[in-house]
Amino acid sequence: MTTKHLATRADFAQRAESLARLAAELARRDLTPATSSNFSMRLDADHAVITISGRDKGSLGVEDFMIVDAQGQAVGTDARPSAETGLHVQVYRRFPEVTCVLHTHSRQQTVASLFWAAQGGVRLEGYELLKAFHGNNTHETAMTLPILPNNQDIAALATQVEPLLAAGPIWAYLIAGHGLYVWGRDAAEAKRHLDAIEFMLGCELDLTRLRT
Amino acid sequence: MTTKHLATRADFAQRAESLARLAAELARRDLTPATSSNFSMRLDADHAVITISGRDKGSLGVEDFMIVDAQGQAVGTDARPSAETGLHVQVYRRFPEVTCVLHTHSRQQTVASLFWAAQGGVRLEGYELLKAFHGNNTHETAMTLPILPNNQDIAALATQVEPLLAAGPIWAYLIAGHGLYVWGRDAAEAKRHLDAIEFMLGCELDLTRLRT
Amino acid sequence: MTTKHLATRADFAQRAESLARLAAELARRDLTPATSSNFSMRLDADHAVITISGRDKGSLGVEDFMIVDAQGQAVGTDARPSAETGLHVQVYRRFPEVTCVLHTHSRQQTVASLFWAAQGGVRLEGYELLKAFHGNNTHETAMTLPILPNNQDIAALATQVEPLLAAGPIWAYLIAGHGLYVWGRDAAEAKRHLDAIEFMLGCELDLTRLRT
Amino acid sequence: MTTKHLATRADFAQRAESLARLAAELARRDLTPATSSNFSMRLDADHAVITISGRDKGSLGVEDFMIVDAQGQAVGTDARPSAETGLHVQVYRRFPEVTCVLHTHSRQQTVASLFWAAQGGVRLEGYELLKAFHGNNTHETAMTLPILPNNQDIAALATQVEPLLAAGPIWAYLIAGHGLYVWGRDAAEAKRHLDAIEFMLGCELDLTRLRT
Repeated sequence: MTTKHLATRADFAQRAESLARLAAELARRDLTPATSSNFSMRLDADHAVITISGRDKGSLGVEDFMIVDAQGQAVGTDARPSAETGLHVQVYRRFPEVTCVLHTHSRQQTVASLFWAAQGGVRLEGYELLKAFHGNNTHETAMTLPILPNNQDIAALATQVEPLLAAGPIWAYLIAGHGLYVWGRDAAEAKRHLDAIEFMLGCELDLTRLRT
Repeated sequence: MTTKHLATRADFAQRAESLARLAAELARRDLTPATSSNFSMRLDADHAVITISGRDKGSLGVEDFMIVDAQGQAVGTDARPSAETGLHVQVYRRFPEVTCVLHTHSRQQTVASLFWAAQGGVRLEGYELLKAFHGNNTHETAMTLPILPNNQDIAALATQVEPLLAAGPIWAYLIAGHGLYVWGRDAAEAKRHLDAIEFMLGCELDLTRLRT
Repeated sequence: MTTKHLATRADFAQRAESLARLAAELARRDLTPATSSNFSMRLDADHAVITISGRDKGSLGVEDFMIVDAQGQAVGTDARPSAETGLHVQVYRRFPEVTCVLHTHSRQQTVASLFWAAQGGVRLEGYELLKAFHGNNTHETAMTLPILPNNQDIAALATQVEPLLAAGPIWAYLIAGHGLYVWGRDAAEAKRHLDAIEFMLGCELDLTRLRT
Repeated sequence: MTTKHLATRADFAQRAESLARLAAELARRDLTPATSSNFSMRLDADHAVITISGRDKGSLGVEDFMIVDAQGQAVGTDARPSAETGLHVQVYRRFPEVTCVLHTHSRQQTVASLFWAAQGGVRLEGYELLKAFHGNNTHETAMTLPILPNNQDIAALATQVEPLLAAGPIWAYLIAGHGLYVWGRDAAEAKRHLDAIEFMLGCELDLTRLRT
């Protein structure tokens, strides 16, 4: 075994352990119900570590992760990656600085994505937590979190996502009835972006109930 | 003691321990308030392991379980099984592949079952989590979760349930003001079905509040 | 020290430890915010163990409890009992079979007690959990949980409570903006009554929001 | 090193550890999402211990705190204090008896601060928990929690706060879309004030949804 392979194996384990810890926290917070959700980290320019399909996200171990290439194909394993792998690698291909992509499936994300599906997005404005997004330095800004129609054909979904990424900066989008995709330059930033969106979606839903 | 008896005793303990662990998790999530709820696993073609009546579901041990036959009669014990035992064994009799039946009693299940009681069911549509049910491969489907009127006469309840089971596939039903019955081919599948229903009922209640 | 004193001391510690464990659980569930709430158990025909005023209910020890007599006067200590001690001993005087009284202060109890204050009570009907109350064997019953106006004069409050107790059976009442008093023949029953009320109040509030 | 310096170092560590414990609890309760929030304790007449900017509030250690003077300038470190340090020291300058200031950022605080921003405050009335505030002995009182418009210029925010402090007694205020500032004569009192406000804001939001 070459030094390169040893290094890769250690890098794989390190990322898998980071994602397993993060997934356990998100599971406790009800963001990954019923074996939904998937998580990945970049391994190098052309590869990522991602969850194997169908595992319980509350108790992941290193053996629940695998490597995929930039097209989302399995590398060195017969395991099947999460169904939405194509949406993860699309983000890594587009943004070289991104090293972590999270797909979660909270009740708030699902409700917001269905309630505002027809208008194609949720406008977030007036929140101090808008500053949690890399590149924002003030609450006197606004962002629209896009909502895409759901589709079991992941390639078709990716085609819809592509112009959103091209028009960036963008850190997240919703799929109607399906949940959130969110990323960051490292895992801590991806999680901070996730936490801020989850928080603001909750506020928007509360304010909508109060105002109507 | 014969080998058969030894095997059965080990099988009993294994199922009781599995159910106790599952029940503790469900209790933490407020799905089993005030000694409500009951849980069972199939032991063999003609027997099931089920909770003894009236115990606190947050701290069950092997001694809180007993064996019943296919008619719900106690086997080898004077203990009294949970009042709704007849609804558990009805499912085992109908579906040979089912090995686990869960009855829970969450606030959302209770509210949904009362709010939609008059229409006889809750329609679940547009959710990616519909794929959590065995046999569904797409969110482009819909299922109606039936709601039955409550009745202290379990045999009368079972008579109402029978045509629903006969018309299957079906994995769950609600009883108004009383909670959910849900099952699966193994305990993990029963729990995944439970989690998906709990999630979608919460979404439906939220969307109803937002839309009115 | 006489044998009687030794026995009493052990009985005191046993009750204080039971209440401390119960209080810690209720604190985790947000039923005792900001040093509110108080808890007691009967020691003998004429005495009860009760929380000392103003302690954090999430981390009580034996030293946070004291003994009061049937009139709510401190026995063998200079400590001050919880302000509402008079409402606890009133229940012990009226019902010899009651050995535990809990006063909690959840958000749901507070909201329900203010929202339905003008009608003097909350009607609970159609819930399987009505069977959690000692003496009920069916959901085909109903109970009205009385709501009294708040008053800083505990003797005046007790005067309002007296006719409710005399007209029993009764296991609980609300004070507007202030929380719940609930009791049982033992601590487990008092807690089961508390859990059932907390659950049904939550359902009633949800159903009211859905129906309007 | 002089005795004074040794004493100060021990005092610093004691306050930092107290705040870290408190912050961990508040993080568990979702009061500090996405590295928001900041916490301080008075060190002496002219100094305070405060969180360093941008740290995760769920896992703070002594190394995540620093000392600032009465003008909010860093003392003995190159670290940058939390952005809102000016609002903390403003309270310490005005009220010599205050030794702890907490800034939290819960969903309820954010929703209430946006929903009632136009009326400049939230009126809290009829709650037994009004007695949780130092100086209140009855629920037959009322307090208005002021709401200020958000501003990235902390000096400008402080100018808006100043007349509120001058007109005291006052224990807390909200900033729209940004969260709560709350304080007390010691950390336990600051936390009791925080818990009471968080509780009453939740009740007010629930009652508003029920009444409309």
